[in-house]
Amino acid sequence: MPEFFNVLPPDEARVLLLHHLGWRLETERLETAKALGRVTAAPILAPHALPDFRRSTMDGYALRAADTFGASESLPAFLLIVGEVAMGQAAEVVLEPGQATIVHTGGMIPATADAVAQIEHTQVVGDPAAALPFEIEVFRPVAVGQNVLQVGEDVLPQSEILPAGHLLRPQDIGGLLALGITGVEVSRRPRVAILATGDEVVTPQEVPRPGQIRDINTYTIAGQVEQAGGIPLLKGIIPDDFSALQTAATSALDDSDMLVMSAGSSVSVRDMSVRVLDGLGEPGVLFHGVATRPGKPTIVGVANGKPLLGLPGNPVSAMIQFAMFGEPAIYHLQGLQNPPRHGLVWAKLSQNIASESGREDYIPVRLADTAEGLLATPIFGKSNLIYTLVHADGLIKVPLNKAGLPAGEMVEVRLF
Amino acid sequence: MPEFFNVLPPDEARVLLLHHLGWRLETERLETAKALGRVTAAPILAPHALPDFRRSTMDGYALRAADTFGASESLPAFLLIVGEVAMGQAAEVVLEPGQATIVHTGGMIPATADAVAQIEHTQVVGDPAAALPFEIEVFRPVAVGQNVLQVGEDVLPQSEILPAGHLLRPQDIGGLLALGITGVEVSRRPRVAILATGDEVVTPQEVPRPGQIRDINTYTIAGQVEQAGGIPLLKGIIPDDFSALQTAATSALDDSDMLVMSAGSSVSVRDMSVRVLDGLGEPGVLFHGVATRPGKPTIVGVANGKPLLGLPGNPVSAMIQFAMFGEPAIYHLQGLQNPPRHGLVWAKLSQNIASESGREDYIPVRLADTAEGLLATPIFGKSNLIYTLVHADGLIKVPLNKAGLPAGEMVEVRLF
Repeated sequence: MPEFFNVLPPDEARVLLLHHLGWRLETERLETAKALGRVTAAPILAPHALPDFRRSTMDGYALRAADTFGASESLPAFLLIVGEVAMGQAAEVVLEPGQATIVHTGGMIPATADAVAQIEHTQVVGDPAAALPFEIEVFRPVAVGQNVLQVGEDVLPQSEILPAGHLLRPQDIGGLLALGITGVEVSRRPRVAILATGDEVVTPQEVPRPGQIRDINTYTIAGQVEQAGGIPLLKGIIPDDFSALQTAATSALDDSDMLVMSAGSSVSVRDMSVRVLDGLGEPGVLFHGVATRPGKPTIVGVANGKPLLGLPGNPVSAMIQFAMFGEPAIYHLQGLQNPPRHGLVWAKLSQNIASESGREDYIPVRLADTAEGLLATPIFGKSNLIYTLVHADGLIKVPLNKAGLPAGEMVEVRLF
Repeated sequence: MPEFFNVLPPDEARVLLLHHLGWRLETERLETAKALGRVTAAPILAPHALPDFRRSTMDGYALRAADTFGASESLPAFLLIVGEVAMGQAAEVVLEPGQATIVHTGGMIPATADAVAQIEHTQVVGDPAAALPFEIEVFRPVAVGQNVLQVGEDVLPQSEILPAGHLLRPQDIGGLLALGITGVEVSRRPRVAILATGDEVVTPQEVPRPGQIRDINTYTIAGQVEQAGGIPLLKGIIPDDFSALQTAATSALDDSDMLVMSAGSSVSVRDMSVRVLDGLGEPGVLFHGVATRPGKPTIVGVANGKPLLGLPGNPVSAMIQFAMFGEPAIYHLQGLQNPPRHGLVWAKLSQNIASESGREDYIPVRLADTAEGLLATPIFGKSNLIYTLVHADGLIKVPLNKAGLPAGEMVEVRLF
């Protein structure tokens, strides 16, 4: 048990955890259209160029640019329109010098054309409803390539369109399907076992007797697991008994890729959690104690490559610590290289916040749009109080090296 | 057809759309544990206080605060420990003056106690492993209520814990279950029909012939619908034929709560889309034209309370316009009062961006962490190019009243 009895700064603690997670989960093949939010297993190359034919970006006439050089309002170029390229059809018309063809936005450009004159810069000579062929005047010179999307302008053949470890967003799904990539190899979703412990904890369905409380952490953490792309496995409530907890934790971990326990905050219960987590595999508990508030007594470990989290029983601490260690671990297991950046907003702090230097403090805040901009009002309360988070829109961090924040300061609020 | 031929500023356009959506969807009852991301149908009241018994926030001794008044290191208070409150049990011990009981973090406080002395501020007299009763010294005075969570400190009985129209986050689920609220009435998820149109568009499974392209928009929009909480209904690809489109649009709308069409950008096709959308119900098309780039030719309407969107065929325009009108419409249909704030990050712009005053420009940017902080590099490219968004981490907005942004300026990047 490589134990670190000192309390670690949170960034250092996270690095230590991820350092011990040397592997990533197996991959699976999915329909691309169903892979939103999943993580690519390998780099993906473009099988062909996009677009793979030259397309017009305007309604107008595909032509030879040279035929329009010197054209002006007073001295237009005259061109003979000999065809029309229908949408979705090959542009088979062959243009002789002085000839052009009708083309629509997105339509194909004939091989013999090299530019498109926008319809607004032209005029039909004579009857505007005349049948083909008819003559037009072009009032502006058109440059070679103007209003034309070139082959490969979006993607070149064989170029890497997505790296390995990329989280698939709607635009990525669209980009893959545009190239006919209808299947994609992605990491499977991590299965995260969640165990609640505590002689005082009962299910939400039960009516607690005096001294009992309903389980909150199983459900808040399950929501966080889901939002991070994992599959929560609810493993129930275990009494404060070493062997019951050991049996439950061993079985929960066997069945999953990661174990999260939320335990009471009393010293004896916490010691038991440390011993149980440490016995689950190598290297065991990495540290217990993080320099944050709330959440100092967090236990973090690894058992044979699987992350282990022992969260404080207080629901506010549990959520904040899960965001700090659980979420990055779920991303890491999927090989995610570009975890989504947390949305932040800047807001003006409505009142002073005191803190201790040497500790990262997280304070829930409520946001309000005011005439002077966004205002962040701290919600103070013990970390037992889940409703401090229910009433909050986000969290403010008071960094390690600061002893508080003054009213009026602009602060970054992490949406939560 | 109350048509507005002028091009509307985007904020005004959105207000106009939402103004015409006077209703919200029916509600359904869900298990609270499965309601993550759903929207409450009605205010929810607390059935009882939380906590509903007084709890200790420390390991220590529950006592009568008056017994410790004046206690100090040199003159400690002596108390007789007559019991232990086990976790999850009612605190039935009755304390006489001068008596106290062991209590654990989260445990119940006896009716006859009014404070908890933290174990660190006490010492057992004589053998520390002595059986009950034993005597302790308390070295600091304890105030009434100290280290005690009071009844209702988190939630008062009958208080409104969540308003109607609230998006349920993990902490909200936890907060409801803490009160035994295991079922919740929420809006059903809006069903959003997505129609692609265009003679040139084929499915991703097909190999396009010259002049054809694969459908992108159906899938990018489906992803956006899902992320906003809707259920995407993929209604396939319809050729550019008025009556085929009318039939398909009518049937798609019958089956859904909202219709999104992505159509080509050529003038004739766009005119057809306007006519089809306008014929689907009252009031019909509200406007076609928004002062943004990309996405100016967006069509927005309402048919009998159902939102209608006619998006430009260009995939970049389609995604940006969907974010602008589709997402708020999906939220609105669910009665959502607190749509999630979009995550923003601040970054330094790496190069000049030109724009036109009187138009809101959206420019995809890539973010990089550098020694000088976050750097945003614009990704220029025609709005036909889906890979400008695949390579982007977010969008910069150049406001209506600005004619561009200079390099070095700090800009807000909307994560995308």
